[in-house]
Amino acid sequence: MAHLPNFIQKLIDEFDKLPGIGPKTASRLVFDLLHRKEDIKILADNLNAAYQQIHLCPKCFNLSDDGLCKICRNPERNTKLIAVVAHNQDVEAVEKTSKFTGTYHLLNGLLSPLEGITPDRLKINELEKRISEEEVAEVILILDQSMEGEATAIYLSKLLKKYPLKISQLARGIPMGANIEYTDEVTLSSALENRKEL
Amino acid sequence: MAHLPNFIQKLIDEFDKLPGIGPKTASRLVFDLLHRKEDIKILADNLNAAYQQIHLCPKCFNLSDDGLCKICRNPERNTKLIAVVAHNQDVEAVEKTSKFTGTYHLLNGLLSPLEGITPDRLKINELEKRISEEEVAEVILILDQSMEGEATAIYLSKLLKKYPLKISQLARGIPMGANIEYTDEVTLSSALENRKEL
Repeated sequence: MAHLPNFIQKLIDEFDKLPGIGPKTASRLVFDLLHRKEDIKILADNLNAAYQQIHLCPKCFNLSDDGLCKICRNPERNTKLIAVVAHNQDVEAVEKTSKFTGTYHLLNGLLSPLEGITPDRLKINELEKRISEEEVAEVILILDQSMEGEATAIYLSKLLKKYPLKISQLARGIPMGANIEYTDEVTLSSALENRKEL
Repeated sequence: MAHLPNFIQKLIDEFDKLPGIGPKTASRLVFDLLHRKEDIKILADNLNAAYQQIHLCPKCFNLSDDGLCKICRNPERNTKLIAVVAHNQDVEAVEKTSKFTGTYHLLNGLLSPLEGITPDRLKINELEKRISEEEVAEVILILDQSMEGEATAIYLSKLLKKYPLKISQLARGIPMGANIEYTDEVTLSSALENRKEL
């Protein structure tokens, strides 16, 4: 990109660092953005705001701009009920259901020994500290149904067994819109076992 | 995203505007970025630089930070030879070959009546003006091999016929690494017709 202004190469390098974005896509995105001057400004301003204010909530490790996050600050949320999730997007997904009135605890990842993500890399000590200090009645593990998600769920359920609280995880079953023919055996077995009387 | 700081929603909205990025991907990208504070700063700073300096080269319409772009300013580039391309990425691709020493003219798109992209929406008048004012010996059409690319090539070759210059386009043939079995008939026919003696 020697023929282009320096800041363009730097922008492409930064976009290239984003998950799932390769160098070709990065340059396509940057070139598209550079043709929309107003959006460059909005993006720059909000990134500046983020740089100055963003931090992790000291209690649940969700993103916040001022001390505790909005959920931990909300007196209407049930602090005795903690949903343990891996990522910010998962909080988003649960909040959209409007069915959960408890608080969250973000692990900021899932256990994955192969990738070097051991328990100390996640906010697990902080979860234990929170449970031992606060009055927690139930911990719901809301984790991906992947190898890493399962491993994290097993690790946490063993770890938290010593505390007088309920540990639960999401029900397994047939998702909305599913085709029975293409549903895997594990899901179908669970759905059969946990069948509901009509 | 009511539970998150406002600037996060704004960042997600801006990422969502990028080509090929939907709302889910946008939030995944933004959340990833927000966990890397240094990169937020680099991105913000370079976007600010872009906002203050970026404009289109008044001659070839490539991106520039100061008057004419670096290629148009370079006295070693042959101004009699103009490569007509649709997008910034195409300049990038041609520059990587190191085989082209002429200058460029960016149309900033391809003709597509269905999408409302008519000749006046592209930098075609500007190309004609450039050809009538400067001494141009050859115009090479370096355009995608798509419906839109073909339409643009046909339109331009008709339009420029009245000028005393050579109009050429890239050779069609078998690309590097191609499998004969899976090559389409049009490409294979052209490659046969234009076969080269060894």
